[in-house]
Amino acid sequence: MAKGKPPYVAVCGSGEATEQEEAWAEEVGRLIAEAGAVLVCGGLGGVMDAAAKGCEAAGGVSIGILPGEGRGAANPHLTVSIPTGLGEARNALVVRAADAVIAIGGEFGTLSEIALGLKLGKPVVGLHTWELAKGGTPVDAIVRVTTPEEAVRAALEATTVEN
Amino acid sequence: MAKGKPPYVAVCGSGEATEQEEAWAEEVGRLIAEAGAVLVCGGLGGVMDAAAKGCEAAGGVSIGILPGEGRGAANPHLTVSIPTGLGEARNALVVRAADAVIAIGGEFGTLSEIALGLKLGKPVVGLHTWELAKGGTPVDAIVRVTTPEEAVRAALEATTVEN
Amino acid sequence: MAKGKPPYVAVCGSGEATEQEEAWAEEVGRLIAEAGAVLVCGGLGGVMDAAAKGCEAAGGVSIGILPGEGRGAANPHLTVSIPTGLGEARNALVVRAADAVIAIGGEFGTLSEIALGLKLGKPVVGLHTWELAKGGTPVDAIVRVTTPEEAVRAALEATTVEN
Amino acid sequence: MAKGKPPYVAVCGSGEATEQEEAWAEEVGRLIAEAGAVLVCGGLGGVMDAAAKGCEAAGGVSIGILPGEGRGAANPHLTVSIPTGLGEARNALVVRAADAVIAIGGEFGTLSEIALGLKLGKPVVGLHTWELAKGGTPVDAIVRVTTPEEAVRAALEATTVEN
Repeated sequence: MAKGKPPYVAVCGSGEATEQEEAWAEEVGRLIAEAGAVLVCGGLGGVMDAAAKGCEAAGGVSIGILPGEGRGAANPHLTVSIPTGLGEARNALVVRAADAVIAIGGEFGTLSEIALGLKLGKPVVGLHTWELAKGGTPVDAIVRVTTPEEAVRAALEATTVEN
Repeated sequence: MAKGKPPYVAVCGSGEATEQEEAWAEEVGRLIAEAGAVLVCGGLGGVMDAAAKGCEAAGGVSIGILPGEGRGAANPHLTVSIPTGLGEARNALVVRAADAVIAIGGEFGTLSEIALGLKLGKPVVGLHTWELAKGGTPVDAIVRVTTPEEAVRAALEATTVEN
Repeated sequence: MAKGKPPYVAVCGSGEATEQEEAWAEEVGRLIAEAGAVLVCGGLGGVMDAAAKGCEAAGGVSIGILPGEGRGAANPHLTVSIPTGLGEARNALVVRAADAVIAIGGEFGTLSEIALGLKLGKPVVGLHTWELAKGGTPVDAIVRVTTPEEAVRAALEATTVEN
Repeated sequence: MAKGKPPYVAVCGSGEATEQEEAWAEEVGRLIAEAGAVLVCGGLGGVMDAAAKGCEAAGGVSIGILPGEGRGAANPHLTVSIPTGLGEARNALVVRAADAVIAIGGEFGTLSEIALGLKLGKPVVGLHTWELAKGGTPVDAIVRVTTPEEAVRAALEATTVEN
């Protein structure tokens, strides 16, 4: 990886994802690596595994921030993995470590990462992910995209790297 | 407080709430205390302050789990306050400490608590709070209620106290 | 509990303590309650159980900050218990929640709480606990006492309540 | 970095270290990299900076697990840095992420990492670091060494990589 101060981009999604979601995640991981950014994820399977796989294939650096106490649950494509032992509280660390967040599909864990990202003021980009509303009115806090290319471009454009 | 093993109910909402939300929260806090349950909240202002105030007025026990490193930010109505120094990662602890979660209105922090509650399999009751959807289809994971009485009743009925 | 802003005192020690340590802990818990202070501990057995028992007997308020995900492991004498799901990282929270720390005997977990207390600038009082040295020279950062009465007096005198 | 499953070794020490400690840390970092292991540290200055510098010079991979909310405080030699926002509670994560811990000199933060490492059952190697005793009797839980070479050899020999 070229030294300097690369942006960090989190990729969030379900540990049991659809084939389509995994294909998007792999492409997102590849594009993050090609842009010279660092990939952050929750370190497990599904979208996290696919994103790390795409990143690895393009020679990029990826970090898995795991909920459990050991590295045994880490997917095999990560450059490094950090077993936090914090359980779901680790979702806050995934988001905190990132300059921008890309959510792909996802279940309640992903929703918590979207919410924490927005709470922390991080750009959150969504690819077929959760839709939010209050009192029947949509809340458009997530940058909606429809392709992996748009997702990575939007994440990197929105990122002011804090270094 | 009567000994035994009371349920713990988290009340989540914005630190800068509307008058209506604060009125609901105060009533929810009072009803939690009257039911002999323990109130858990994030310890700050707005909905958290109002819920603790209602709990205090009814002679109940409340716990504030604070994001910062000191008790100085705690609202004055709490029985005890725990400064975690974890920042927004403390939202996971608010939810984990509870047997059921009541969300009143709320912003992105509340959304993260709803999501973490659902992820952890806790009953989540919503009073004029976030609405969730995927692909245009509502996701009805939150028990919707319209009054404080219904909120507390739904939370307590759904609770299997783990003790 | 009388309102106002009581100091919080952590009592740290082994989950499998000697009879002597448990007797000291129970007396420390009683004295903390009689002083109107709040007892904080790790919520489990041994010294933690005995301290909470003494606190309860004197009508005091105690908080157990648990490492696991449920309240099931909490000792039965606590006023409230908080299951953090953070594992040993919860030791930092026990210390952070307190204005002063009393260590009674103890193993490596207690040593970590002593160290974190000193790192955070909290007064740390030791009753037959760890002795520290560097290069053969004792490091006298712990206030050494020999009785529960001295321990609680030293902890409360050293405390500047941050409220 | 050669793929496979390298051991992770934490290097702990003061953020304001002596020249001698920094020289040891740099050599320890270099030897960890040459052994194909991953260096974990707290990400700040002093011993942490020197260890990461040595690791970088030998082409190794290093991870900084930071206490604050941003990467700005990270030393410039790290491969990746993770701002946890957990304050001193991050010390538990530094130790948890490692298969073995090397302590070089150090103050109370380092002592907490030694204690947490021992609590978690990790091998802890000490180079001119804290000495522990109870009741006047030394507690020999730390593997004592006198050179960086011995430190890294002892850490790697004691490591059963959990992967």
